Amino acid sequence: MNIFVINSGSSSIKYQLFRMPEEKPVCSGLIERIGFENAMIRHKYFAENEEKTIERTLKLTDHEAGLLEVVKLLTDPEIGAIKNPSEIYAVGHRVVHGGESFAATTYITNKVKAEIKKLFPLAPLHNPANYIGIEIAEQIFTQAKQIAVFDTAFHQTLPEKAYRYAIPKSYYYDLGIRAYGFHGTSHKFISEQAIRYLKTPDTKIITIHLGNGCSMTAVKNGISIDTSMGFGPLGGLVMGTRSGDIDPSIIFHFINQLGYDPEQVNSLLNKESGMLGMTGFSDMRDVEKSIKEGNKDAKLASELYAYRIQKYIGAFSAILNGLDAIVFTAGVGENDSGIRKRICDNLEFLGIFLNEEKNNLRSNTLREINSEKSKVKILVIPTNEELEIARQCFKILEE
Amino acid sequence: MNIFVINSGSSSIKYQLFRMPEEKPVCSGLIERIGFENAMIRHKYFAENEEKTIERTLKLTDHEAGLLEVVKLLTDPEIGAIKNPSEIYAVGHRVVHGGESFAATTYITNKVKAEIKKLFPLAPLHNPANYIGIEIAEQIFTQAKQIAVFDTAFHQTLPEKAYRYAIPKSYYYDLGIRAYGFHGTSHKFISEQAIRYLKTPDTKIITIHLGNGCSMTAVKNGISIDTSMGFGPLGGLVMGTRSGDIDPSIIFHFINQLGYDPEQVNSLLNKESGMLGMTGFSDMRDVEKSIKEGNKDAKLASELYAYRIQKYIGAFSAILNGLDAIVFTAGVGENDSGIRKRICDNLEFLGIFLNEEKNNLRSNTLREINSEKSKVKILVIPTNEELEIARQCFKILEE
Repeated sequence: MNIFVINSGSSSIKYQLFRMPEEKPVCSGLIERIGFENAMIRHKYFAENEEKTIERTLKLTDHEAGLLEVVKLLTDPEIGAIKNPSEIYAVGHRVVHGGESFAATTYITNKVKAEIKKLFPLAPLHNPANYIGIEIAEQIFTQAKQIAVFDTAFHQTLPEKAYRYAIPKSYYYDLGIRAYGFHGTSHKFISEQAIRYLKTPDTKIITIHLGNGCSMTAVKNGISIDTSMGFGPLGGLVMGTRSGDIDPSIIFHFINQLGYDPEQVNSLLNKESGMLGMTGFSDMRDVEKSIKEGNKDAKLASELYAYRIQKYIGAFSAILNGLDAIVFTAGVGENDSGIRKRICDNLEFLGIFLNEEKNNLRSNTLREINSEKSKVKILVIPTNEELEIARQCFKILEE
Repeated sequence: MNIFVINSGSSSIKYQLFRMPEEKPVCSGLIERIGFENAMIRHKYFAENEEKTIERTLKLTDHEAGLLEVVKLLTDPEIGAIKNPSEIYAVGHRVVHGGESFAATTYITNKVKAEIKKLFPLAPLHNPANYIGIEIAEQIFTQAKQIAVFDTAFHQTLPEKAYRYAIPKSYYYDLGIRAYGFHGTSHKFISEQAIRYLKTPDTKIITIHLGNGCSMTAVKNGISIDTSMGFGPLGGLVMGTRSGDIDPSIIFHFINQLGYDPEQVNSLLNKESGMLGMTGFSDMRDVEKSIKEGNKDAKLASELYAYRIQKYIGAFSAILNGLDAIVFTAGVGENDSGIRKRICDNLEFLGIFLNEEKNNLRSNTLREINSEKSKVKILVIPTNEELEIARQCFKILEE
């Protein structure tokens, strides 16, 4: 069965085709700069057991034009994986915000589309783009089941004390102001893998997703009970360009005392802060390089980045009332042994002991990097949100 | 030696007279509604080993008029403690914000006054009022040493990774945007008492100040290494009327999506949130009563209040890399056994075990309320910021 996974952004489409239930990735790709003269497609496929890449620069007026180009590649007589779009059995859509309406993967109906639309104000940068992806896919893959997988769904199990803010309740009931959490697909994927690996029925796990966006989740017996991102994707950990947690007083100080426009502050905290703001680099590899060159700002930024994560590890072990494993994933989490070391150092009280040698080995499979005496397993598990979406689609199709 | 302690607010003056080094409180009082027709003085003093109270309603045009009334009471032939204002050897002023200029108690000079004035933008509600108190006291107690004790000073030992935010460094260097922390006088006072009680040279303590304002501090060997309040007094724990930590995205959502004025949001989070916003009551005694009457909002608010504290206990034990004691203080912390229980429950992983019977005993002295098997001491220590200010004045006078 062919399941095609789409992640539609405001000017981009990321896609991947899986053969299920084998979980075999057939081809994948990324379209960028949709709406521009110099849009770009990078398409990867397997031929003779080798990964090959096609790159094309072309004009793409809109998402439809982009997705039609992908269909051409999918059905190409030479390198295509299918002969006809009707061979796609289901399209799995990544949708960032499911609000409180969607605690699970769901078939896309008109009612579901209306709900996703209702959530535009909660995710103004993401849901409209996800919605366009759905509409285009419905037109192109007319015979496929359309399925939505929500980034917030995994966190719908948070208890009220974790998702509510200490503001009058009308803001929650009338305006939906609460913590939703994000990166749910990734946290679900790696926590399930960790649970399988640990082979214990009751597990207390902290999953640490460190990509360009960063978040952490406290997972108790497979259930998300708290997460570092809240209402939007700005709070919690220090990220590539986002500040993470910041005293709300500062925002009012900017506006009232320093005369900033609110939108300037919003942009500052979302786009010009985090590692970029502190070091000039949003990519952790550049930051690490800068540290090695003796740059003090880079050193401080990386200390702050790790320190914030340590505090969340402590906070989450307290509310889990125990800790069996911490799991690192995503670009930085999977590849940056320096950051992992900084995070795991000086947490012996919580039973965390790193094996430095294992930490320094590179690999792209699940691995354990704690020392033998560590009470807490330290795992590195590559995330795969596209595969998780395909899995969830397959599961709902089977039911 | 007579040391007179003043805490000057925008329309109030709180004061207390100590005889040092005996640490004997001679009299104390509060003036409220300065600038109004119906200002009020409540003056307490000891006569024949009994505490007596005088209350007067009168017109007070300004702080000077208020303090002159206090002098009348202090020098009253019948109930006064002194004959002449010149018998006050030193006046200790509570000053909320010392910025990075003041890491310790200091004699007030013109240069110091200029520095306090420079910090007005960082504490617009407090420093100007503290400043007025200083100017008036200089005029009235002309022969006394004037000494400033800063609420931020104890936290000047925070490491950079704890006080910096993940924003471009110019905002720190040019505009002073960093975490300062508050309630320092209280955290210092109770942590020193706890260290004396524990009799261990190396201590890892978390002090939990729960009054109308609430904050927590991680204290390592007597030194503050992190604290829950940051740049201003809004972040961190849930408070009487303040929200504590809140996803900064919410502020921009209020302004950009819902059309709020920034000042409205500021006021909402500072004055209409916290326990008041969630339950209609800012006083925890009313909240507890409401819980007993079966009110669900009150129950949730109190769970949220305790949950937030549990997360900080976890976060701070992680960065302390150990935990010897947690200390409760201030109105709620000293008197609310229900909240203490909710906080200490389900933290066995951190070695915290409450003795419920001891927790339920009321007392106004230092007490230990953990069970015998608890690895972490749970202490209740009444705070006394005025005495701490007098102590710090005495110490600097001795040097």
